[in-house]
Amino acid sequence: MQDMTNLTPETAAQLLDERRLPRLRELTDETQAEDLADIVEELEPTHAIRFFRLLNKELAAQVFAELNPDAQEKLITAFSDRELKTILDEMFYDDTVDMIEEMPASVVRRIIANSRPDDRKVINELLRYPSDSAGGVMTTEFVSLRADQTVSQALAVIRRDGINKETIYTCYVITPTRKLLGIVEAKDLLLSDGDTLISEVMEENVIVAHTLDDQEDVANRMSKYSLIALPVLDKEDRLVGIVTFDDAMDILHNEAEEDFSKMAGMSTAETPYNKTSVFTIWKNRFPWLAILMVSATFTGIIISSFETALAVIPILTAFIPMLMDTGGNSGSQASVTVIRGISLGELRLRDWYRVVWKELRVSLLCGISLSVLAFGKVMLVDRLIMQNPDVTVTVAFVVSVTLCLIVICAKLIGCTLPLLAERVGLDPAVMASPFITTMVDAIALLLYFGIARSLIPQLG
Amino acid sequence: MQDMTNLTPETAAQLLDERRLPRLRELTDETQAEDLADIVEELEPTHAIRFFRLLNKELAAQVFAELNPDAQEKLITAFSDRELKTILDEMFYDDTVDMIEEMPASVVRRIIANSRPDDRKVINELLRYPSDSAGGVMTTEFVSLRADQTVSQALAVIRRDGINKETIYTCYVITPTRKLLGIVEAKDLLLSDGDTLISEVMEENVIVAHTLDDQEDVANRMSKYSLIALPVLDKEDRLVGIVTFDDAMDILHNEAEEDFSKMAGMSTAETPYNKTSVFTIWKNRFPWLAILMVSATFTGIIISSFETALAVIPILTAFIPMLMDTGGNSGSQASVTVIRGISLGELRLRDWYRVVWKELRVSLLCGISLSVLAFGKVMLVDRLIMQNPDVTVTVAFVVSVTLCLIVICAKLIGCTLPLLAERVGLDPAVMASPFITTMVDAIALLLYFGIARSLIPQLG
Repeated sequence: MQDMTNLTPETAAQLLDERRLPRLRELTDETQAEDLADIVEELEPTHAIRFFRLLNKELAAQVFAELNPDAQEKLITAFSDRELKTILDEMFYDDTVDMIEEMPASVVRRIIANSRPDDRKVINELLRYPSDSAGGVMTTEFVSLRADQTVSQALAVIRRDGINKETIYTCYVITPTRKLLGIVEAKDLLLSDGDTLISEVMEENVIVAHTLDDQEDVANRMSKYSLIALPVLDKEDRLVGIVTFDDAMDILHNEAEEDFSKMAGMSTAETPYNKTSVFTIWKNRFPWLAILMVSATFTGIIISSFETALAVIPILTAFIPMLMDTGGNSGSQASVTVIRGISLGELRLRDWYRVVWKELRVSLLCGISLSVLAFGKVMLVDRLIMQNPDVTVTVAFVVSVTLCLIVICAKLIGCTLPLLAERVGLDPAVMASPFITTMVDAIALLLYFGIARSLIPQLG
Repeated sequence: MQDMTNLTPETAAQLLDERRLPRLRELTDETQAEDLADIVEELEPTHAIRFFRLLNKELAAQVFAELNPDAQEKLITAFSDRELKTILDEMFYDDTVDMIEEMPASVVRRIIANSRPDDRKVINELLRYPSDSAGGVMTTEFVSLRADQTVSQALAVIRRDGINKETIYTCYVITPTRKLLGIVEAKDLLLSDGDTLISEVMEENVIVAHTLDDQEDVANRMSKYSLIALPVLDKEDRLVGIVTFDDAMDILHNEAEEDFSKMAGMSTAETPYNKTSVFTIWKNRFPWLAILMVSATFTGIIISSFETALAVIPILTAFIPMLMDTGGNSGSQASVTVIRGISLGELRLRDWYRVVWKELRVSLLCGISLSVLAFGKVMLVDRLIMQNPDVTVTVAFVVSVTLCLIVICAKLIGCTLPLLAERVGLDPAVMASPFITTMVDAIALLLYFGIARSLIPQLG
């Protein structure tokens, strides 16, 4: 992969210190907005503001929209009202709204005060939608056409209005009351005769979203149908905005990262690992570790209450980690599959019985095959090779029967809890680690000791 | 979210059986290609081929490209040579190549035999690139322009050639030897005067990929820079293809799913959960469960060898699950963070020292805070509330010191192993489950028993 820029934060700082501003400006013009944003974030505050002021107006707004909220806030504090106004005038509404949602009240007041009255109205409209809804991520800047226009007229509209729109590649055909009739792709405009009517080239079979749809559903749908943009309708089915493919990519990316973090028992970091402080990482990880540790009290209590049994046949202790680990792994296989299925919109509550029935069959297959393997392994490795006289056929039998039941229970818990969580409105991914681990561990031990007691006469 | 189609596999089967073909054809015309593909996959073979033959030519090729390899193979077997030829002529090269990579040799021979000679050449070229490289996912259908053309001429080129190209929204300006000079967005063509030269509107500062770049790097870059398409250059820097945003979305999606599966100790299913058979799910899950179970032999051996110590102070057994679980959780927090960092291209081998240094500080914070919490919990819950006389201050001390060390070791192993795996060319995500769990478990037990022996005189 070619790296098109030689501009690093170090070079930028050095050129600023040496006042070689024309050279620096030249380099910024050759650098992508996203990379310039990375540089601004890494520079120290005084350098950052001086660097930012060097950028040309249009590029500055692009870079500003790419910055993380911390860096945006620092720059806004350093901006004059005039500078802030210039940036805000150039930014897309959806980026402004995203920014406002992260800023403290005092900064928000300054942003609103420095927006144009028209912009202020749109921003206030957009702020009313939940930030994770289609309304919260959409932009209101799109090209709208009428069905009775010709292709030439439509191209003229694009030439006139398109410059300020986030995408011109899909245009929306609406009625005077803003009802969506269909879409026209720029491709079809370019490939059609000038006097063709829009109504003849428009596609009426359109995939749409509504303002309150979940942003992840919107992104999944755009990915499935390979859409560059998706129209968003309000309750009265009027077209109010569009979601563009770059927003969809960000949503898909962020939701996947959130699921990863939650499944590993962490809060999600807002920033990449490299840029997150040690203390923040600790804050994201410690609470989950603490909850899980304290919840292990249950397993401790169960083991304590079987202390006498373990004293009679100490070798039983040796198989506890294997049984608990296998249970944990079986459960997390099922839960990760189901949680991702829910996240991707492939599984819903009404699939409940089908999922449980499928996992039951999978767990029977897994349980029986592992159980046979475990019996062989215990007899061969622990009894024959390690020559451990305590490992009797009965012990091997207890271990393998327990294992089979544990795998079945773990898979059923692993697939049921996320669906239950979803039903009662909790986040399925958060349920995965703490509850499933604790429940599977406790059940594994109870099964183990129960089966040992009933099959080994000395323990009865 | 509006669902635009009422066509279900059941309706389709019924209409086929009742021979109400015009009505069915009408419904297919109102349905998206992606949804039609879902229906074809769910119909039984005889229905599927009859349903597919109803579709109009262009739609049929789109639907065919969206099918999973199983369904594609079944249809090809049922196709006449003429039908196969028609579909192949309509398909994009990259979709044909994707399909060929999944088919058995006999089917591949039929596909090649029924392709046009020109197409055959391109397909053979594309098949030479590794399927997970930029060359393997790119399409060769793009619009190329010359720098000395005018905007009007360029629009004429798009009108003439564009119909068969996968995207016309980014056009590529090349020299006669196919070196890439720059890109022109369709937007800029539409917004410029007709007699402006392409060299004046083209953007020379272009993000590119090379044929052998990893597909995930390509997709990450497209996501970062919000690109609709990314040009791919060969070793001689000639433009040979482009990767489009829909392919990038698929790559990001599939790689995230693969990471999820691997981290939960599963092979990745090629199909959504609903469509995967019980036996296939078992096949994806069993090997990992078996490997992990057998590797738990180590922990068993360690516990057996400390059997006498556990017999003297049986309460020590009660804390084993808590210590192992906390170790496992700490390790997976670190490993998931690092593995995702590697996948997303945020972490590289040269970050090695920085990652270890950061995780060391995080693990110290986590270790000490958990250790204090554990001491308090053991003294309060196990000693005071549960009134367990065996839980002495010494035992609580042993547990909390061990815990602190386990957390530190686990985090260091969790962040080091994925980076090591990456260095020696193994998949970091696959390393996560088996090796980290086994190592952390073994180290946790060795630390626990070692510390218990040195601090509790009865065990010495």
